[in-house]
Amino acid sequence: MSDSICIAVDAMGGDFGPRVVIPASVDALKRHSHLTLQLVGQQHVITPLLADALKNSSAQSCVSRITVVDAANVIANDERPSRALRKRSDTSMFRAISQVADGAAQACVSAGNTGALMALGRFTLKMLPGIDRPAIITAIPSVDGASYMLDLGANVDCSAEHLLQFAIMGSVMTTAVEGIIEPRIGLLNVGEEEIKGNEQVKLASRLIREHGDLNYIGFIEGDDIFTGKADVVVCDGFVGNIALKSSEGVARLIGRQLRTSFSDSPVRRFIAWLAKPVLDEVRMHIDPARRNGASLLGLQGIVVKSHGSADRTCFGYAIDQAVAEVQMDVPGSINRRLESQAI
Amino acid sequence: MSDSICIAVDAMGGDFGPRVVIPASVDALKRHSHLTLQLVGQQHVITPLLADALKNSSAQSCVSRITVVDAANVIANDERPSRALRKRSDTSMFRAISQVADGAAQACVSAGNTGALMALGRFTLKMLPGIDRPAIITAIPSVDGASYMLDLGANVDCSAEHLLQFAIMGSVMTTAVEGIIEPRIGLLNVGEEEIKGNEQVKLASRLIREHGDLNYIGFIEGDDIFTGKADVVVCDGFVGNIALKSSEGVARLIGRQLRTSFSDSPVRRFIAWLAKPVLDEVRMHIDPARRNGASLLGLQGIVVKSHGSADRTCFGYAIDQAVAEVQMDVPGSINRRLESQAI
Repeated sequence: MSDSICIAVDAMGGDFGPRVVIPASVDALKRHSHLTLQLVGQQHVITPLLADALKNSSAQSCVSRITVVDAANVIANDERPSRALRKRSDTSMFRAISQVADGAAQACVSAGNTGALMALGRFTLKMLPGIDRPAIITAIPSVDGASYMLDLGANVDCSAEHLLQFAIMGSVMTTAVEGIIEPRIGLLNVGEEEIKGNEQVKLASRLIREHGDLNYIGFIEGDDIFTGKADVVVCDGFVGNIALKSSEGVARLIGRQLRTSFSDSPVRRFIAWLAKPVLDEVRMHIDPARRNGASLLGLQGIVVKSHGSADRTCFGYAIDQAVAEVQMDVPGSINRRLESQAI
Repeated sequence: MSDSICIAVDAMGGDFGPRVVIPASVDALKRHSHLTLQLVGQQHVITPLLADALKNSSAQSCVSRITVVDAANVIANDERPSRALRKRSDTSMFRAISQVADGAAQACVSAGNTGALMALGRFTLKMLPGIDRPAIITAIPSVDGASYMLDLGANVDCSAEHLLQFAIMGSVMTTAVEGIIEPRIGLLNVGEEEIKGNEQVKLASRLIREHGDLNYIGFIEGDDIFTGKADVVVCDGFVGNIALKSSEGVARLIGRQLRTSFSDSPVRRFIAWLAKPVLDEVRMHIDPARRNGASLLGLQGIVVKSHGSADRTCFGYAIDQAVAEVQMDVPGSINRRLESQAI
């Protein structure tokens, strides 16, 4: 794609703020020659760090493609969304989203407070017609590659209609970003039989099936999230958040046990050294950080959320995700899909 | 403990039925010299398999400690609980539970249909006074050893009061079986702050805190299930089932990726051979099969559910779990705790 893309980056968000965001942004400019970035945040903090990041010669070509948008305040990681909404003006997160709302940028990336990002995104960009609530979607590793899962925590209480909307948005996103024509949609439940589950998922299953325009494969269970049985896994935000974090927890437990067991003796440490390329390969396949970049779907604009603890490389993946969504016009694709259907 | 223990085993349940249950039962008799088992199921199927399992000399000492209780029918794995209730008479599962209700056995073990086991258990044994619904609890691996988690799928819709009851039952179970005096209780949620979560968990958190007699540590997130932060993880059955199965799914994905990557070349296969003891050690620590044996808490009797796919060794763990619960009188302990408190 040769069209130029402009992305607003919340430079202050995340556990490490500008120290990670700024070098990651300069790296992204090197990767994407048609990309322009707006670093939104405290100018007096950003400017010296940016000068530093641009110092080496290979970054010089990036100078003209990166600007600073001053914003005096920062939304704290533990700020309540309602408070973030009230104090929004002149915060880096609100300003970054506003750049998208004003048409000055085509997407926004932030590693800040998810609840605040959701509230500000919804307030500023508004929902797409036909979508009641935004949903958080991300790619998760599976046997064959990756699946997409939503919602991952934007909505702790969802109706069956919301789950149907998530199914439609997830389907469009997977087609746009992964090129899968008719993504298989699975609804997360405690069993595969139609009689299983709570009223919400039973009704949602009927709605998705009756919708007719989705490649719906029915209920899937928790262990199927990672088998690639479905291209899109649909669930409410409470369940999705806990399922994903549980999985990350067990993956970390396994990693920790491997490290402990492999460092038990000099012989084992030697075997670990031999096995390192294999273990690194497996880690690369599984590591959620490689797939950093969760998207807020359902808004009239692209907002990508990076893990708060993302390092320079991982924050770069979130920028890449935003670039891909701009190129494929994900919100426009969802909107066209909704307009073509009576849901 | 020298008191003799009698357990009724549903010989027909699970994916492999008597072919696994019978040898596992004979093994359990060898491990527990004061154990007596009743194999409940189709006598004409059980008798030849039992004769076979008892054939070798070391099993001869078990002959007098194992009896067959005839039951002509079997509840299918996909039978609806309501149908299982209607057709119950003369099914192996119902008969095995009835042995407990009648005082002929002190516990029942089945690898059959969980929903049916729950319905029949509730119908036959009745709930403990003060407990509205049974909950499924099991041990899960953590950094330091194991935690207990409930509910794992018995209840797809729970009220805050149910979650409080689960917290009490989980606390008593963990003290009884693991000897932990004041088990730390964590309530599973999408965040640790009091403002996070749906109404159900927010109210449950207040109830558990106000209850006063539990060592409640507040909300925990999905990734904390496996860190050992809480000794007892409380959640509703929908979330618990999906969290546990998701974790099993990612553990299997990692196992599969390790096998694939380690078999990529002759050199790697050699390294895999060297690394096998380490990998086996980690698998042993993580493997949920090692912790086979989920208990139905809240009933006036002990019912242990084995994985349907359990092999001979794993089914044995479920019997061991039942033995431990009889020795520690888990239902009696829960009852005494409830009687001593106004909940």
